[in-house]
Amino acid sequence: MRIAVDAMGGDHAPDVVIQGAIEAARLLSENVEIVLVGNGPILREKLARLAYRYRPRSVVFHEASQSIEMGESPAQALRKKRDSSIVVGLGMVKSGQAQAFVSAGNTGAVMACAIFEVGRLAGVSRPAIGSIMPNQKGVSLLLDAGANADCKPINLLQFGIMGSLYFQHIIKGSRPRVGLLSIGEESTKGNELTVEAHALLAKSHLNFVGNVEGKDILKGAADVIICDGFVGNVILKFAESIVGMVSSTIREKVAANLRSKIGAFLLTPAFAKFKRRFDYEEYGGAPLLGIDGACIICHGGSSPKAIRNAINLAVRVVNSGINQQIKYQLQEMSDHVPA
Amino acid sequence: MRIAVDAMGGDHAPDVVIQGAIEAARLLSENVEIVLVGNGPILREKLARLAYRYRPRSVVFHEASQSIEMGESPAQALRKKRDSSIVVGLGMVKSGQAQAFVSAGNTGAVMACAIFEVGRLAGVSRPAIGSIMPNQKGVSLLLDAGANADCKPINLLQFGIMGSLYFQHIIKGSRPRVGLLSIGEESTKGNELTVEAHALLAKSHLNFVGNVEGKDILKGAADVIICDGFVGNVILKFAESIVGMVSSTIREKVAANLRSKIGAFLLTPAFAKFKRRFDYEEYGGAPLLGIDGACIICHGGSSPKAIRNAINLAVRVVNSGINQQIKYQLQEMSDHVPA
Repeated sequence: MRIAVDAMGGDHAPDVVIQGAIEAARLLSENVEIVLVGNGPILREKLARLAYRYRPRSVVFHEASQSIEMGESPAQALRKKRDSSIVVGLGMVKSGQAQAFVSAGNTGAVMACAIFEVGRLAGVSRPAIGSIMPNQKGVSLLLDAGANADCKPINLLQFGIMGSLYFQHIIKGSRPRVGLLSIGEESTKGNELTVEAHALLAKSHLNFVGNVEGKDILKGAADVIICDGFVGNVILKFAESIVGMVSSTIREKVAANLRSKIGAFLLTPAFAKFKRRFDYEEYGGAPLLGIDGACIICHGGSSPKAIRNAINLAVRVVNSGINQQIKYQLQEMSDHVPA
Repeated sequence: MRIAVDAMGGDHAPDVVIQGAIEAARLLSENVEIVLVGNGPILREKLARLAYRYRPRSVVFHEASQSIEMGESPAQALRKKRDSSIVVGLGMVKSGQAQAFVSAGNTGAVMACAIFEVGRLAGVSRPAIGSIMPNQKGVSLLLDAGANADCKPINLLQFGIMGSLYFQHIIKGSRPRVGLLSIGEESTKGNELTVEAHALLAKSHLNFVGNVEGKDILKGAADVIICDGFVGNVILKFAESIVGMVSSTIREKVAANLRSKIGAFLLTPAFAKFKRRFDYEEYGGAPLLGIDGACIICHGGSSPKAIRNAINLAVRVVNSGINQQIKYQLQEMSDHVPA
């Protein structure tokens, strides 16, 4: 298996990406080849320096002379930079030279390139980003976390199918509970989109548990939480900002006196546990579900650990054969429910 | 001034409401009369018991024989229960017998009754719930927090105008920074609704600071945060669930050993500060802005403190004369921008 990795993408590229790739190579089977996509001479020099004690044989290079910056307009960048690490890396997935692409680069460009150049899986109307949302019991999968700002009810039904399969194969357990994010428990509560989507989900084969509200997310009321990409992105970014807020509010007070300082010292392990549960780096990256290949999208600020976990996740996604399952279930559905 | 209070509304009515009213009466000027709306005999007996040492002269009664339950369908309940505390209390506002209504009862029924029976202010297309959102620097006002699941761009512009005036008059400071909740900083990022609303807001007289993302909310990037009622309600309920999640995650670990227990004891004041900042009871309730009167909506689970603070807030809203300002600014706007 070959995993193409965007060596030029992310706030701390290429160093952090190379370090993550080295760490992943040490953990993964030798059958997995990690292909760093980017500027060859720079990468070779960096790799030699970063892996001076041991250069994993399973880390190789693929040339891409350009890189798309974080702030660039995706549409323009994809037109102009045909030799960028994103276009070249996803091109490898399209041509079969690689089975997955991992990037911490410009999210909009990665999404657009994956959707329009690698292409959608048969039957998928809109690919979606699935993002891990930690909760009191474990984790849920929230989708769409930002690929589609405006959605139709059928899109939400498909997110439910893709998310359910992803949870089952990659996270844990069968018959995941699928919840529709809304603003009231009853099927009639919500906006026009969710009320119509509720009806579609209720008729589906999914283990649909109905509407879940904002207050239910952290309780773990559903394994898969469905929403449009606007709501999902707002919630995801809000959730990611919680750890910082909690830490700084408590820190302010702690700094104020000795009693609190000692208390904080004694509680270090408890805080560490809290931070770990909400540390998005643990989860590596978010899959773009519904494309004809595998693509893992990482935070721009990813650390080597996050890149390592994302590469590891890409391997698991490819091994799961989830795309076949998605195609099969969407085919089944369209046989029963005319679009 | 007379403030009508829904004595039959909320999970712990009427006791909690009566207690809150007594506390408010002790703090407020004698010019403010608090009118408990509900079943007279029950209220009189409860008040006698709860205020056995001192019965504030400014707490009076107004008879309403029915009460709308928390789970009832608002539309049906309003048709059938014409003598409910909600219909009667808001009727007092409409007729001028009271200047404001405070309720911890069925939110949907309060909203619907306020909007359709008290009526909207001239020029307001959609009234909105403004909710306090604590952040690292202080608080922001988020609106709409749930009155309108589906919105048009003009509604969001009006939310900006009403929220800006409310922040200025009731919270603090002039020229509040108005931000549009979206999923990217650029004006072209977002969904169809926010992209159009951005254009309207940018042309307005408001101190518009552009899009704010989910991660900016807790940073206090804007004083007034505008969104549709679906997104607002999801975010609000999610935010309200954070304190419980943080506490329980840390508590689990704390219970595990003596070191952590001592640490937690020493940190009690720091935790208290954190909880206080996120304690929605401090803020009393949320105003329904844009109706021709004043209406404060409280949590169903409100404590006496929350009810007290909500009554206090109602007095401040009435004294601020904010409704005149809203009418004036919307009139100004429609003179300049034909709808």
